[in-house]
Amino acid sequence: MTVTYTSNVATCSGFGCFWKLLFRWKGSIYKLVWPELLAYSCLYYACNLAYRFALSEEQKRLFEKVSVYCQYFSDLIPLSFVLGFYVSIVVQRWWEQYMSLPWPDSLALFVSTSIHGLDERSRLMRRTVMRYVNLTEIITFIMISPGVKKRFPTLEHLVEAGILTSNEQKIFDDLNAKTSHSKYWMPLVWAGSIIARARKEGRIRDDFAVKTMLDEINRFRGLCGGLLSYDWISIPLVYTQVVTLAVYSFFIAAIMGRQFLDPAQKIPNHEINWLVDRNLQVSYLIV
Amino acid sequence: MTVTYTSNVATCSGFGCFWKLLFRWKGSIYKLVWPELLAYSCLYYACNLAYRFALSEEQKRLFEKVSVYCQYFSDLIPLSFVLGFYVSIVVQRWWEQYMSLPWPDSLALFVSTSIHGLDERSRLMRRTVMRYVNLTEIITFIMISPGVKKRFPTLEHLVEAGILTSNEQKIFDDLNAKTSHSKYWMPLVWAGSIIARARKEGRIRDDFAVKTMLDEINRFRGLCGGLLSYDWISIPLVYTQVVTLAVYSFFIAAIMGRQFLDPAQKIPNHEINWLVDRNLQVSYLIV
Amino acid sequence: MTVTYTSNVATCSGFGCFWKLLFRWKGSIYKLVWPELLAYSCLYYACNLAYRFALSEEQKRLFEKVSVYCQYFSDLIPLSFVLGFYVSIVVQRWWEQYMSLPWPDSLALFVSTSIHGLDERSRLMRRTVMRYVNLTEIITFIMISPGVKKRFPTLEHLVEAGILTSNEQKIFDDLNAKTSHSKYWMPLVWAGSIIARARKEGRIRDDFAVKTMLDEINRFRGLCGGLLSYDWISIPLVYTQVVTLAVYSFFIAAIMGRQFLDPAQKIPNHEINWLVDRNLQVSYLIV
Amino acid sequence: MTVTYTSNVATCSGFGCFWKLLFRWKGSIYKLVWPELLAYSCLYYACNLAYRFALSEEQKRLFEKVSVYCQYFSDLIPLSFVLGFYVSIVVQRWWEQYMSLPWPDSLALFVSTSIHGLDERSRLMRRTVMRYVNLTEIITFIMISPGVKKRFPTLEHLVEAGILTSNEQKIFDDLNAKTSHSKYWMPLVWAGSIIARARKEGRIRDDFAVKTMLDEINRFRGLCGGLLSYDWISIPLVYTQVVTLAVYSFFIAAIMGRQFLDPAQKIPNHEINWLVDRNLQVSYLIV
Amino acid sequence: MTVTYTSNVATCSGFGCFWKLLFRWKGSIYKLVWPELLAYSCLYYACNLAYRFALSEEQKRLFEKVSVYCQYFSDLIPLSFVLGFYVSIVVQRWWEQYMSLPWPDSLALFVSTSIHGLDERSRLMRRTVMRYVNLTEIITFIMISPGVKKRFPTLEHLVEAGILTSNEQKIFDDLNAKTSHSKYWMPLVWAGSIIARARKEGRIRDDFAVKTMLDEINRFRGLCGGLLSYDWISIPLVYTQVVTLAVYSFFIAAIMGRQFLDPAQKIPNHEINWLVDRNLQVSYLIV
Repeated sequence: MTVTYTSNVATCSGFGCFWKLLFRWKGSIYKLVWPELLAYSCLYYACNLAYRFALSEEQKRLFEKVSVYCQYFSDLIPLSFVLGFYVSIVVQRWWEQYMSLPWPDSLALFVSTSIHGLDERSRLMRRTVMRYVNLTEIITFIMISPGVKKRFPTLEHLVEAGILTSNEQKIFDDLNAKTSHSKYWMPLVWAGSIIARARKEGRIRDDFAVKTMLDEINRFRGLCGGLLSYDWISIPLVYTQVVTLAVYSFFIAAIMGRQFLDPAQKIPNHEINWLVDRNLQVSYLIV
Repeated sequence: MTVTYTSNVATCSGFGCFWKLLFRWKGSIYKLVWPELLAYSCLYYACNLAYRFALSEEQKRLFEKVSVYCQYFSDLIPLSFVLGFYVSIVVQRWWEQYMSLPWPDSLALFVSTSIHGLDERSRLMRRTVMRYVNLTEIITFIMISPGVKKRFPTLEHLVEAGILTSNEQKIFDDLNAKTSHSKYWMPLVWAGSIIARARKEGRIRDDFAVKTMLDEINRFRGLCGGLLSYDWISIPLVYTQVVTLAVYSFFIAAIMGRQFLDPAQKIPNHEINWLVDRNLQVSYLIV
Repeated sequence: MTVTYTSNVATCSGFGCFWKLLFRWKGSIYKLVWPELLAYSCLYYACNLAYRFALSEEQKRLFEKVSVYCQYFSDLIPLSFVLGFYVSIVVQRWWEQYMSLPWPDSLALFVSTSIHGLDERSRLMRRTVMRYVNLTEIITFIMISPGVKKRFPTLEHLVEAGILTSNEQKIFDDLNAKTSHSKYWMPLVWAGSIIARARKEGRIRDDFAVKTMLDEINRFRGLCGGLLSYDWISIPLVYTQVVTLAVYSFFIAAIMGRQFLDPAQKIPNHEINWLVDRNLQVSYLIV
Repeated sequence: MTVTYTSNVATCSGFGCFWKLLFRWKGSIYKLVWPELLAYSCLYYACNLAYRFALSEEQKRLFEKVSVYCQYFSDLIPLSFVLGFYVSIVVQRWWEQYMSLPWPDSLALFVSTSIHGLDERSRLMRRTVMRYVNLTEIITFIMISPGVKKRFPTLEHLVEAGILTSNEQKIFDDLNAKTSHSKYWMPLVWAGSIIARARKEGRIRDDFAVKTMLDEINRFRGLCGGLLSYDWISIPLVYTQVVTLAVYSFFIAAIMGRQFLDPAQKIPNHEINWLVDRNLQVSYLIV
Repeated sequence: MTVTYTSNVATCSGFGCFWKLLFRWKGSIYKLVWPELLAYSCLYYACNLAYRFALSEEQKRLFEKVSVYCQYFSDLIPLSFVLGFYVSIVVQRWWEQYMSLPWPDSLALFVSTSIHGLDERSRLMRRTVMRYVNLTEIITFIMISPGVKKRFPTLEHLVEAGILTSNEQKIFDDLNAKTSHSKYWMPLVWAGSIIARARKEGRIRDDFAVKTMLDEINRFRGLCGGLLSYDWISIPLVYTQVVTLAVYSFFIAAIMGRQFLDPAQKIPNHEINWLVDRNLQVSYLIV
């Protein structure tokens, strides 16, 4: 779930607006990465301390060579290229998914304006249409969100919550026996029938309203189907694996490669010292 | 609020069109960053002066080492990558939000063309529909903009401004007692009822006009809902924190790392001198 | 105004298609930047000649230090990052604005198909609807384009051009007295009334045609409003200032920093020579 | 086919969520590239071993020169620029194609709501419309997917599967004799006729439903045509060739250029040692 | 014209799928650039051979200085930035143009479903509507494609091909005498009239079908107008000139700058040797 923090920033001016954001825990970067950060720091400082206090001079030289090699290796990983690409896809999908969330508000607006009548049956019809639409949304969410699945693990829970009647549950059970495909659209078919019946009984004044509501129901179905698509069609595993491999191998290499070596041994162009050593020796020999 | 400056540029040609833009204060980059810029400059020159005049030679050497380390550290921060990504998201959201602003013009056009009649009741109906639409927009803005919130802190203020009647206010109060969810769509339901009544009384000639107006009202509601979404679903806190951390740590590192050291000590490949020192000594020793 | 050059390229193959484009003046990069280019070149070569012929040796050394410092400074400006971002926003807006231009063609097609009758009144109605639509477009253009504003500085000019009648001008004048908001949508309201009247008089056979035309008029209004938005909401001044500052400071720095110094003094890693000097001295002293 | 792995990640928190993804074979990066990876590794280590154990000192020097040249050459290939551009186009097309897949659900919803009647003929009509829509989809898939083509290599196979009747097959055969253009839209024409007949027989209550269904059938046709477009209009061969050339020449160069040479000979700025050698000799000679 | 090569890749797995694409000539990168590539190679190797065999030692030194200067110059051209930006715009426009191609299929579907009657006049009406739509498409293509222009250089050729009648040609000629603006939309007006007449004669059962077909005709017109826009509004000449200048100057500089100089003279940090020479001399002098 996203964490709203607009109010912290909108009314703030001058100095320090963004500092405040750094000290939030919920939804923060710290909460997300602390286990990895902790593990990385432990390994890094373990190596560091071993290098400074435990190793002999010769082992230090070996350590430095490995460190230089790791730094060379980690420079070859185009991390920002790979991450930039992946993150921009992830953010785009996240926002598109949010934008694909089906809201029943529009249909509610149309239903309240179009299905007339203050008698009990009219009221029931209006309520049942909206119940069906919400039912479809919940069934969709059960399929994609572990949290909603936990709240409504079976159809019985929906019956208990008053969102499904036991007759309707029986129809679902019959359908489940016939096919294992998703049946999230079923309540929308029922909602369509109710609207058709309401028109026949004269509770809807004209065909335009019927068409408007059916179009809206269809749009709702499309959005639910879209959400399922986003859930079903992940970012190709290939990309996720490439990114995971790149990030993990970068940080493993960085444990060694980013050690701040004894300055005298620290080698920016990493092998220059061997090179210069050799060159100087050779040249002095020539001299 | 954005500042319009097109007129400064559109009619200008040749030399110096853009120079003029640099000397504007309202909405300018200077106004936005001057506190941070001032703080940064003070710290930077404090360090600078201390380095040049206050420190002893040995302290200078230490200062230089810290500066080299800070520069090395700040080079590791992929600032342009992180900023580029963040800024492009922010700009995109800004423009999309502007494009999501609901304008009542279209509905006004339809209402004036479709609801006939020059008598008082017809006029009232036309005006009430438009009042409701504006009411929805204002309620939406109250929720997302501190400026509008300040202008209309309570429903009473809307009543005083003539945008809400006291009967309608009572309905809002009753609804507020029942649920705390946003009720910005309520006036649109009322607008829909008025249109339905106008059709029944023959003030609207055909069902097409009804459908067109209801569709437009629904589109209006969708835009208001979209604005609330943009307000509610900020850019994930994680990104904002990453960017804030990156920028602040970059500039803190830059206070030291971008010091223009005494040229003789300035070290582009920063540790080369230690390295070269050592190498030369070693090689001479070997020689 | 954009310059069409497709015909130069479309039928050309093999060698030299694009060379030809380099020798066009109208709408060319040369026409756009020649004042800046000239000023830059003059300053650059003035410095260059002064350096080569006028300065003493010591002044040359100072010049070189300043040049090295400028080059170092100009390397810190992330010009391609800032420019890339800005240019892509500008190009996108340019194309979206072109795509938002309202064309009356669609409405003309609908009007000619839907409003029947070969008598004078029918013809007049068809023509008046189209006149109103064009009037709205011209009023919109007057607000955003200095060129059109120059052609029609007042409403009288529109009357003279036969696009506005004097009665209509009077209505505009009355409205201007009441409110200073833009009134570009007024003629579209009139066009809607004419269509409603034509339907009442039986010149339009069915309600579908009325709805189609009103929808099209509304789309037209939306496009005009969109154009005004693009004009009113510029790219935030902050960005334009950042880009202008970056480009100007880059080129001012480049006047000195890109001087092709006497090779013997030219310093790729700019301070290396001081560094190497010192290191060698120190190391020899140690030896 | 994409592999769904959301369930692995959605319920996992803390440490090691993404590690698990690395050990999947189906749809993985390993499965995709192992032949290339194997070939590359063999060549790389063959060269490596030859260099370390088989070559004489002189051959080693030659090997090192070739390696340095290859590394220099491979650095000139802007691989991440070319790949980034290509991959982003491919991913975008992949997702757009998925989003263009035509789902018959919407039409099914409309058909079940709009075509009334519980008698056999009504049921048959509803089923036939849906059969035709599925038929169009299958014919489209046969043209773009080798897998579906293998399942239904001829029209007879469709007849056997009960998706096509033999009468309809005859019509297809007649059409095939007349033109070789794609005829995937034919069943949609038939579906349209059935809907028209159902309206005439009163099985559809109003014209709105007819329009809704015809619009949906047309949208379906548009999506099928879109899929064919994606299949027919590949990414221009030019780009694919550029990317293939860039990648292959990069990796061929990398076989030699990324050899980890004997450190003493490893040359970061690759020709520095020749340079430094020569410079030192020259300078000592001068001295 | 794009070249389809999907079939080469879709059924291929394992090793060497993409190798095959490299050996295609039609639509290939080789076909496109061979004249430029040939010219560049000739110049490059001419310089190369001259350098190796024809020049004296002193001329070689001069050649090397020029080469170093060219390489320095070509490194300043942000080629991948400029090209990346330009290519992404070009590819986007190419795909959007393809997506804007108007297909008459949808209208054909509507016409065949909506205009009833098996008599000759009904058939003629159906055929004429489709002929008009195709006529508009051909007139559009004549304006933007030299190939189609070559096939139908005058209206007579359209008459001969049976796409235009001589009466209709006369109307076009009259119109051409009156205005020189494009008249591609004329046949769509005629198609609209035929549909209106068919409705009046009862060949179309309801107004919905009329509206659907008119909307589709209007969409068709919009797409044709869009194609003309893409043709008329090229990418601004400024960008094309910048890219052409950048690419040509880069390659001209590369002729000299990418010469693989005699290793002993090859200078990675190009002036280092002058620098080091001087520094060493100076330092030894100091010593």
